[in-house]
Amino acid sequence: MQITEIEGGVCAPKGFKANGVHCGIRKNKLKKDFALIVSEVRAAAAGVYTQNLVKGAPVTVTRRHLADGYARAIVVNSGNANTCNADGEEIAESMCKMVEKVSGIPSGDVAVASTGVIGQKLDLSPMKDHIGELYSGLGFNSDAAAEAIMTTDTVKKQIAAEFEVGGVRCRIGGIAKGVGMVCPNMATNLIFITTDVAITPAMLQKALSEDVKSSFNMVSVDGDQSTNDTCCVLANGLAGNALIDGDGEDFRAFCAALNHCTVKLSKMLAKDGEGATKLVECKVVGAVGVEQARTVCKSVIKSSLVKAAMFGSDANWGRVLCAIGYSGADVDVHKIDVAFISRAGRVDVCKNGYGIDFSEELAKSVLSEDEVTVLIDLRSGESSATAWGCDLTYDYVKINGDYRT
Amino acid sequence: MQITEIEGGVCAPKGFKANGVHCGIRKNKLKKDFALIVSEVRAAAAGVYTQNLVKGAPVTVTRRHLADGYARAIVVNSGNANTCNADGEEIAESMCKMVEKVSGIPSGDVAVASTGVIGQKLDLSPMKDHIGELYSGLGFNSDAAAEAIMTTDTVKKQIAAEFEVGGVRCRIGGIAKGVGMVCPNMATNLIFITTDVAITPAMLQKALSEDVKSSFNMVSVDGDQSTNDTCCVLANGLAGNALIDGDGEDFRAFCAALNHCTVKLSKMLAKDGEGATKLVECKVVGAVGVEQARTVCKSVIKSSLVKAAMFGSDANWGRVLCAIGYSGADVDVHKIDVAFISRAGRVDVCKNGYGIDFSEELAKSVLSEDEVTVLIDLRSGESSATAWGCDLTYDYVKINGDYRT
Repeated sequence: MQITEIEGGVCAPKGFKANGVHCGIRKNKLKKDFALIVSEVRAAAAGVYTQNLVKGAPVTVTRRHLADGYARAIVVNSGNANTCNADGEEIAESMCKMVEKVSGIPSGDVAVASTGVIGQKLDLSPMKDHIGELYSGLGFNSDAAAEAIMTTDTVKKQIAAEFEVGGVRCRIGGIAKGVGMVCPNMATNLIFITTDVAITPAMLQKALSEDVKSSFNMVSVDGDQSTNDTCCVLANGLAGNALIDGDGEDFRAFCAALNHCTVKLSKMLAKDGEGATKLVECKVVGAVGVEQARTVCKSVIKSSLVKAAMFGSDANWGRVLCAIGYSGADVDVHKIDVAFISRAGRVDVCKNGYGIDFSEELAKSVLSEDEVTVLIDLRSGESSATAWGCDLTYDYVKINGDYRT
Repeated sequence: MQITEIEGGVCAPKGFKANGVHCGIRKNKLKKDFALIVSEVRAAAAGVYTQNLVKGAPVTVTRRHLADGYARAIVVNSGNANTCNADGEEIAESMCKMVEKVSGIPSGDVAVASTGVIGQKLDLSPMKDHIGELYSGLGFNSDAAAEAIMTTDTVKKQIAAEFEVGGVRCRIGGIAKGVGMVCPNMATNLIFITTDVAITPAMLQKALSEDVKSSFNMVSVDGDQSTNDTCCVLANGLAGNALIDGDGEDFRAFCAALNHCTVKLSKMLAKDGEGATKLVECKVVGAVGVEQARTVCKSVIKSSLVKAAMFGSDANWGRVLCAIGYSGADVDVHKIDVAFISRAGRVDVCKNGYGIDFSEELAKSVLSEDEVTVLIDLRSGESSATAWGCDLTYDYVKINGDYRT
């Protein structure tokens, strides 16, 4: 299956336009804070959401609007999460109605998302004042939308790819944000994906629900599962392929393209983790099942001590073993091998659960790269999994020590 | 039940002596690294240990030596955890045999513990060279023992108390260490408790196993459960009370004294958490059961974002709600009240799961104290629980970014 990356983000698929502007929820005028993505035609829609019991009001509203399997637009603000506010749902509905007013798209076909501080009232007036500007500027502006959903993110996260379904060229694109309060369980922070593939809502939801298990759900920046995690996909069918309405080759082709994009976005999210200086990938092989592999690699990627050691480029593999041991997975600790791998090479540090001699110099150079893989071989089966995280740095503490001011 | 704190640590109870020396496992000659606690007579012994599947060799050996319910000595080194070493058990047994050689106490009556780096060979020779000095210096030296078990700890942690059992005056004392890789599940890091109470091994184990659920198991510094967590209690019976061999008033008196000491030690451990500037206590009330209360307060105390906010004295209560929401406890989020409390006063920040107006100035002054309580009322039942942790600071990252060098 050939998947070719292309430009354009969420605007790469046919019939999608986007925009992002500064409306004033954020005080810094250079920071865009209001985004809109619109499909020319009604699109099949699927979503996965946070499992946190404390849910942002927009999560509840989006879930309701996507319940019929269709949507046409996504409206998003940054700077305020609209969570733990007594009037939160009303505010989120009003954001959708604003979109209806300027575009004619029924508010029930609009998904809504918010990200920022929890528990502060979200004032609608800045958005009311700028919805016209936001709508009239819709175009090939995935860049602007990707920028407008950023909070403490330092780089925009976009991806787009071309692939074939039944001989027909299709496109998929996505934008994402979220570098703190990142430890998703069903989805991560805000991710919006567009595609011109023709697919039924049920198959789109099936593809997405399965996909996040190996993509966004395998990312952890700080182990804190956000209240507002939302991942939405709109599929408008304008590519003209034969409608995907069941399993088979076409569905698999779409799933592969989706996973290509979601894994890339996952790595972008992890690498831009708050304060991070490097992407840490943990790959577990030789597990007795995928669940075991996932449990082990998430435990390692979440360990504060492993993360701090990565910051110091310190080959403290004992902390990796420790995190495997408390993960809850029933592993045979006397079979575990561990190696660190990066562009600079590979260093084996542990065999059969015991330390082995290795070159500290080589280890230092391997770990000093900005992308490091912790390879764990459980030597007990055939299953594998990969998780992505980042190092724990002074800047994480700085960013989060006084986030509200 | 009157419990009076006294001096003396583990040497406060009758018939216990202790000592600590520098033997050379640690390079810094000012750091003691070898400790011994001895009872004049054979004592009932109980232990709780890490549930990490990767276990330090000393944990395995101590468990074996305490299986018959009795012990007379505890030998400990810092600077090396003797974990993930192929010859680890042999080394740990040799440490016990060293004690037998100088004291005549059978090695099977010696508990052993090690703390420090994982996966580096533990050389016996520094200990062989200094066991004579360590033994001959035994006396009223709880201070020296408490110092010798420290790793990144900045203060010694000791406690002792007097209490009555059936009209007879008894004493209990303890030392503890552990400020990183602290998120115990059964016990925390190294804690050694002595008492001159007369109690059967079975009742001693019952008291300890129950106690840790509300003391050491409620402490988290960084969410990393150590491979070497060990909490041992020796009860030598020299107080002369009527033997406690079942439930009843005497047992409850002992449990109260034990809990007094373990909770104090728990708070000392949390307050000295690596890099910490303050003790954070999370108290949950109004829960439907103790398990629910414990789940909620541990989730809050472990949240990196809550911890970073505490460092910045930032009243970011939304992060508290977020951590309650992903804790796994089935709470009604629309009943949750949250307040921050310290010596400087109390500030209520959330009612019914929604934010309320509060004075940022008051909040700042409350949170700027070095001991802060997060009070969570679930308003759903009568149960409560308390957990202890600390803030997340630059120094935590610094300490753990390059621990091995």
